[in-house]
Amino acid sequence: MLHSDYRPPNPAPSEDLIARFAAIVGVRYAIRAPAEMARYLDEPRDLFHGKAALVLRPGSTEEVAAILRLANETGTAIIPQGGNTGLVGGQVPHDDGTEIILSLGRLNRIREVDAEGGTLVAEAGVVLTAVQNAADAAGLLFPLSLGSEGSCTVGGNLSTNAGGTAVLAYGNARELVLGLEVVLADGRIWNGLGRLRKDNTGYDLKHLFMGAEGTLGVITAAVLKLFPKPKAVTTAFIGLDSPHAALALLGLARQHLGAALTTFEVVPRIGIDFVLKHGNNTRDPLGEPHAWYVLAEGSFGDEAQAQSGTEALLEEALEKGIVADAAIAASEAQREQFWGMRHILSEVQSREGGSIKHDVSVPVAAVPAFIDAATAAVEALIPGARVIAFGHLGDGNIHFNVSQPVGGDKAAFLAGWDAVNECVHAIVAEFSGSISAEHGIGRMKRDLLPRFKDPVALAVMRQLKATLDPNGILNPGKVL
Amino acid sequence: MLHSDYRPPNPAPSEDLIARFAAIVGVRYAIRAPAEMARYLDEPRDLFHGKAALVLRPGSTEEVAAILRLANETGTAIIPQGGNTGLVGGQVPHDDGTEIILSLGRLNRIREVDAEGGTLVAEAGVVLTAVQNAADAAGLLFPLSLGSEGSCTVGGNLSTNAGGTAVLAYGNARELVLGLEVVLADGRIWNGLGRLRKDNTGYDLKHLFMGAEGTLGVITAAVLKLFPKPKAVTTAFIGLDSPHAALALLGLARQHLGAALTTFEVVPRIGIDFVLKHGNNTRDPLGEPHAWYVLAEGSFGDEAQAQSGTEALLEEALEKGIVADAAIAASEAQREQFWGMRHILSEVQSREGGSIKHDVSVPVAAVPAFIDAATAAVEALIPGARVIAFGHLGDGNIHFNVSQPVGGDKAAFLAGWDAVNECVHAIVAEFSGSISAEHGIGRMKRDLLPRFKDPVALAVMRQLKATLDPNGILNPGKVL
Repeated sequence: MLHSDYRPPNPAPSEDLIARFAAIVGVRYAIRAPAEMARYLDEPRDLFHGKAALVLRPGSTEEVAAILRLANETGTAIIPQGGNTGLVGGQVPHDDGTEIILSLGRLNRIREVDAEGGTLVAEAGVVLTAVQNAADAAGLLFPLSLGSEGSCTVGGNLSTNAGGTAVLAYGNARELVLGLEVVLADGRIWNGLGRLRKDNTGYDLKHLFMGAEGTLGVITAAVLKLFPKPKAVTTAFIGLDSPHAALALLGLARQHLGAALTTFEVVPRIGIDFVLKHGNNTRDPLGEPHAWYVLAEGSFGDEAQAQSGTEALLEEALEKGIVADAAIAASEAQREQFWGMRHILSEVQSREGGSIKHDVSVPVAAVPAFIDAATAAVEALIPGARVIAFGHLGDGNIHFNVSQPVGGDKAAFLAGWDAVNECVHAIVAEFSGSISAEHGIGRMKRDLLPRFKDPVALAVMRQLKATLDPNGILNPGKVL
Repeated sequence: MLHSDYRPPNPAPSEDLIARFAAIVGVRYAIRAPAEMARYLDEPRDLFHGKAALVLRPGSTEEVAAILRLANETGTAIIPQGGNTGLVGGQVPHDDGTEIILSLGRLNRIREVDAEGGTLVAEAGVVLTAVQNAADAAGLLFPLSLGSEGSCTVGGNLSTNAGGTAVLAYGNARELVLGLEVVLADGRIWNGLGRLRKDNTGYDLKHLFMGAEGTLGVITAAVLKLFPKPKAVTTAFIGLDSPHAALALLGLARQHLGAALTTFEVVPRIGIDFVLKHGNNTRDPLGEPHAWYVLAEGSFGDEAQAQSGTEALLEEALEKGIVADAAIAASEAQREQFWGMRHILSEVQSREGGSIKHDVSVPVAAVPAFIDAATAAVEALIPGARVIAFGHLGDGNIHFNVSQPVGGDKAAFLAGWDAVNECVHAIVAEFSGSISAEHGIGRMKRDLLPRFKDPVALAVMRQLKATLDPNGILNPGKVL
């Protein structure tokens, strides 16, 4: 892959300095044994590997502050890490073993749930499902939902501004936050854990730290917004002709359901084929195969609203010929079956040999034209390559994945990684899109960024980095 | 009022320098005649007055850039101004006549409306109602709505992160923005006019400039989000006992309507009394008077959803004794009448003598306790003072206004401004609230800020200001 991993050198910590860091958290939580360290050094897709001088597992915000203070004084590089599920290497150290991993996993308390006010205060190391469950226990909903929710953590979700399947209705992770607690590079603690829906007292600092991938500060806790739990949910698997038809259906769905439309995902037939071939207990969602599918969900205050809204929508869509066929989940089991097919798309794709993936976005109305253009370009570049373009049509974010030709050589296909990236990203740029819609920049896309980002924006980012982390200790060589 | 207006001195521009600034926009748009200048120097509530060396009315982003470049080189203070409707003096120059007002009113083009993608690109000087109307013409909704919408402008709305009556469902102004174009202090133009719903390529710069009141850069254009127009709207005027009952009703309404609940405002009886006394063609919204009222609105995809949701909600609320009486608008005329009563609350209050106002927020669940505590404290401080606490219960933002005692002396009452502020803000602080929920800091609350803001947050704000405006030319002495 195209990344140089150059970064300004941070000094390797001496044995004495390592002992000082270890003393902050206690030896039990300062990990140096290779076997124990291993799980912090690689990442799920096996694309990035690193070495570290030490893994620190602080047990409090104050310990995080003490670690950063010492790191800042000594110029030691700190790699913040949550559930280690990131897909662009942002949480993985470099290879020279001079960096210290700061694992936030022990900051795993849910400090408060306020059902009446609809807020929850979680520490950085709380696993996403634990937040979802705590909200549920309070009769409310925390809508952030993504594939790795069983192991990713709040700190990582916010540091990477996670996306997922509920962005259409509830926004990206950053939109689900009312307040943050952040440790700055020099160890100062910003207590910004406000529970306010409106607060215009100065600059909005929280948005600066969210999506910064741990390069500007370390998020240690957050006030999250909870939502009413929908009393009635309609989930439909819909067969149609093309992404163009899917876009037309999206327009109709927004008209009929408004904010009640909470999911709108597209899947091409080849994705369903992979699911049927490799998934357990799967079956074709509709009687006949269709070229494209939409998985749509509406969330309503009661059954009557759900029924009336869904019926009116599907009636108009069928009448206008936008939709060929549709199945509405008749039970929670069927709903889970529909979602199951969507969730295992990435997994089943790995069973079809090598794949080259792109997490991109374009303006919503441009998605069909983008899929057409990028598919044609990739198929011309690598004859036989199989495009699986699926994902969040509702917010313009397509996972534009390419599987190797049937029977082809995996290594030869993967050797074309940069060329395929180039080809797809060039088309993304034509549509004024983003080369990273929800996964971030990390190590993987750092060297691409200058080619796709407005130069003034990049310059301001560098100014901010220099201001908030003048010694370059926070996740150096990531993002910038 | 408690504000010192101290600021680091910027040099007064010489005649030669004034001529150079004027040459950028052309003499026709460089205003020096006192009569023409007057409307830029005062503000609607007549609390702040200023003097300026010059008013510049640039006609393009490039002219704004040239002005800032020259100002930055010469250390000249620039006061960005939109519709001049701000309530905290942020857009008003100081008294020494050394500052130049940068009026964005000529940047008044709507550059693009994309109905399919649900976006609109507006320049800073476009009046808010013009955006609403352009969205409407495209069959869509731009939900930002506030009292001054007929004269405030997009640039001011975003620079102050405006609130209004639709925040509950659609968020503050900053949540309605996908991209920005900003001229930086040194004249660089950041083109961040992306139309993407998801983009994780680096730091989120747009949120830094929104809510910064023109102290970090000048917003010249924005990509705004448009929403489906609701096909059915239910507007209800509801009588109940107390803010506590109103909070309980809010909880029920969110359960029954979810995201379809788009407005939830509270008004005390005294507000209705003022409206009936001073408003034209007004009448009591319900048969009997009630101690408190809620104006609630739901926005639905169709009439059937509207009816079913509203009926189920009111049935449960009446059954539980939360609501005493309710009227649902039977026509658009009646809906406008309901809204009319809400909109003229500020105006009719001015007919009852002096008033001391507070734009504050607390966590939503704390609003009733806050109103109780602050009312008791103010009534103890000034016997006979009449509290009119109204506003956006749905997002915790209360306009806690105090009218002078009947028959009392206006000047004597207003002399207690600082003491009443102190009293109310102390209680806001007890509830971990904000002393400026939606109006901003400007000149009015600048000197209060250090007492209520986390010191680390303030320090970071100062670092950001020094980084992005090292010569201190952008709205000096405001916010910080």
